[in-house]
Amino acid sequence: MQYRGSGNAFSNLVSNGSYSFSNPAFVALASYSSMSLLKMLGMSTYTMIQRFRTGNFITPEDNMYKQLINRLVHSSGTTKTKNELVERARNNHLNDLENIIPFVLVGLFYIGTQPKFDNALWHFRIFFLSRILHTIAYQIPLPQPARTISWLFGYSSIISMTIPILRSIQI
Amino acid sequence: MQYRGSGNAFSNLVSNGSYSFSNPAFVALASYSSMSLLKMLGMSTYTMIQRFRTGNFITPEDNMYKQLINRLVHSSGTTKTKNELVERARNNHLNDLENIIPFVLVGLFYIGTQPKFDNALWHFRIFFLSRILHTIAYQIPLPQPARTISWLFGYSSIISMTIPILRSIQI
Amino acid sequence: MQYRGSGNAFSNLVSNGSYSFSNPAFVALASYSSMSLLKMLGMSTYTMIQRFRTGNFITPEDNMYKQLINRLVHSSGTTKTKNELVERARNNHLNDLENIIPFVLVGLFYIGTQPKFDNALWHFRIFFLSRILHTIAYQIPLPQPARTISWLFGYSSIISMTIPILRSIQI
Repeated sequence: MQYRGSGNAFSNLVSNGSYSFSNPAFVALASYSSMSLLKMLGMSTYTMIQRFRTGNFITPEDNMYKQLINRLVHSSGTTKTKNELVERARNNHLNDLENIIPFVLVGLFYIGTQPKFDNALWHFRIFFLSRILHTIAYQIPLPQPARTISWLFGYSSIISMTIPILRSIQI
Repeated sequence: MQYRGSGNAFSNLVSNGSYSFSNPAFVALASYSSMSLLKMLGMSTYTMIQRFRTGNFITPEDNMYKQLINRLVHSSGTTKTKNELVERARNNHLNDLENIIPFVLVGLFYIGTQPKFDNALWHFRIFFLSRILHTIAYQIPLPQPARTISWLFGYSSIISMTIPILRSIQI
Repeated sequence: MQYRGSGNAFSNLVSNGSYSFSNPAFVALASYSSMSLLKMLGMSTYTMIQRFRTGNFITPEDNMYKQLINRLVHSSGTTKTKNELVERARNNHLNDLENIIPFVLVGLFYIGTQPKFDNALWHFRIFFLSRILHTIAYQIPLPQPARTISWLFGYSSIISMTIPILRSIQI
C-alpha cells in the first residue's frame, strides 16, 4: 500500500467526490432538499383537504366526492365557482414549484463548485426556513409584507448560490 | 498492478460511484425519469392539439391560429371562455409537474443512499405506471376514485424514497 | 507511482467522473442550467412588477400594496378582474417551469451518457437561446408563430437529449 500514504487515504480520495454521501455538504443538500420537497408534496394533500372541506372540485367526475360529502355531513349547496381557500392552497403550491425546484437544481450545481461547508449549510437553512415561514404567512394568512419578505429570503439564497457557479462559467 | 488485486477491480472501484452509468440503479433512475419526463413533455403537445381542436387560445396574437383553423375547416364560433378539454389537459400537465419533478429529484438523492437495486427498481416502476394510469384516468376520463388512487401510488413511491434519505439526515 | 504511468494520469482518472467540474460538459450544463433557471426566477420579479404597475393582486392581504400604490401615485380604480399583462407574465413563467426544469433534469442524465462535448454544448446553446427568444416573443409580443417556433427549438433540444439515455435503457 503505497498510494498517497495508505489505502485509507486512497479510499477517501475516491469516495470524496462532490456527489457522494461521504461529502457532508451533499448530505446537507439532500436533507434540506428532501424536507423542502416533502413540504411541497404536502401541498397536494392540503389542497385536497381544502377541496373536501369546501366541496370545491375541478372535474365533473369529482361529483362522486361531492355526493360522498353530502351523504356524510348532510350539507348541500356546493358551488362551481372558484373557492378562495382552494385557490390560496393552489397558488401556494405553484409558488413552491417556482422556488423549491430551482433551489434543488441550483443546489446540485453549487455542490459541484465545492463551497465551504458552513456557507452551504447556511444557504440551505435560510432557504428551508423561509419556505416554512412563507407557507405560514400564506395560509393563516399573516398581514403583508410578511409573505413577500419570507419569500425574498429564500429567493435570495438561490440567487446567491448561482454566483460561484457562474464564476466557473463556460459558454 | 497491486492495488486491490487487479487493475480491473480498481477500475470498478473508481467507476462504481453512485452517480455513474456503471451503477444499474442509476441507469434505472435515468430510464424511468426520462420516460416520465417525456410523458410530461407530451402534455404540451396534447394541450396544443386540444387548443387547435376547440379553437381555444390564450393570447390575442394566437388569433392568427384561429383564422388558420377557420380557413381550413370553414368552421366558426370559437369562444373566448375557458374550454373544459383544454383545462383538463392543463391541469393534468400541472399535476405532472407537481409529481414527476419531485420524483426525479428525490430519486437522485435516493440513489446516493445506495438502495438495494430491486427496491429502487420497484419504486421507479410503480411510480411510472401510476403516472400512466393517472393520465388515462384523467383524459378518458374514468370514474373517480380511479384518478385519485392512481395518483396515490406514485405519491407514496416518492414519500417512501425520502425515508432512507432522512435517515442520513444532517441539519 | 506506477498506476497508469503517472500520478497525474491517476488523478485525472479519479476526477474525470461525468459529474464533476473537471468535466467540461458538466460545467457547460451547470452554466446553461443556471442561466436558464435565473431567467425563470426573473419571471417572479417580472410578474410582481406587472402586479404593481396594474394594481392587480391575488389575495385580500395584498390590499396593503394597493393602498401603498394609491398613496404614491394618487391613482385609483384598481380592479379585481384578471389583468392581461399579469396573466401573460404568469403563463410565461409556467411555460418556463414546463420546459426549463425538464431541460436541467434530462441534461443531468444526458451528461451520464458521456456525449461528445460539442454535441452537448450545442444542445445547451440552442435550448438557452430558444428560451430567451420565447420570452421576448411572449412579452413584446411578437406576432405568432414566433412564440411557437422559438418554443419548438428548445423542446426539440430536450427530446434529442433523451435519445442516448433511452439507448442505455434498463426497465
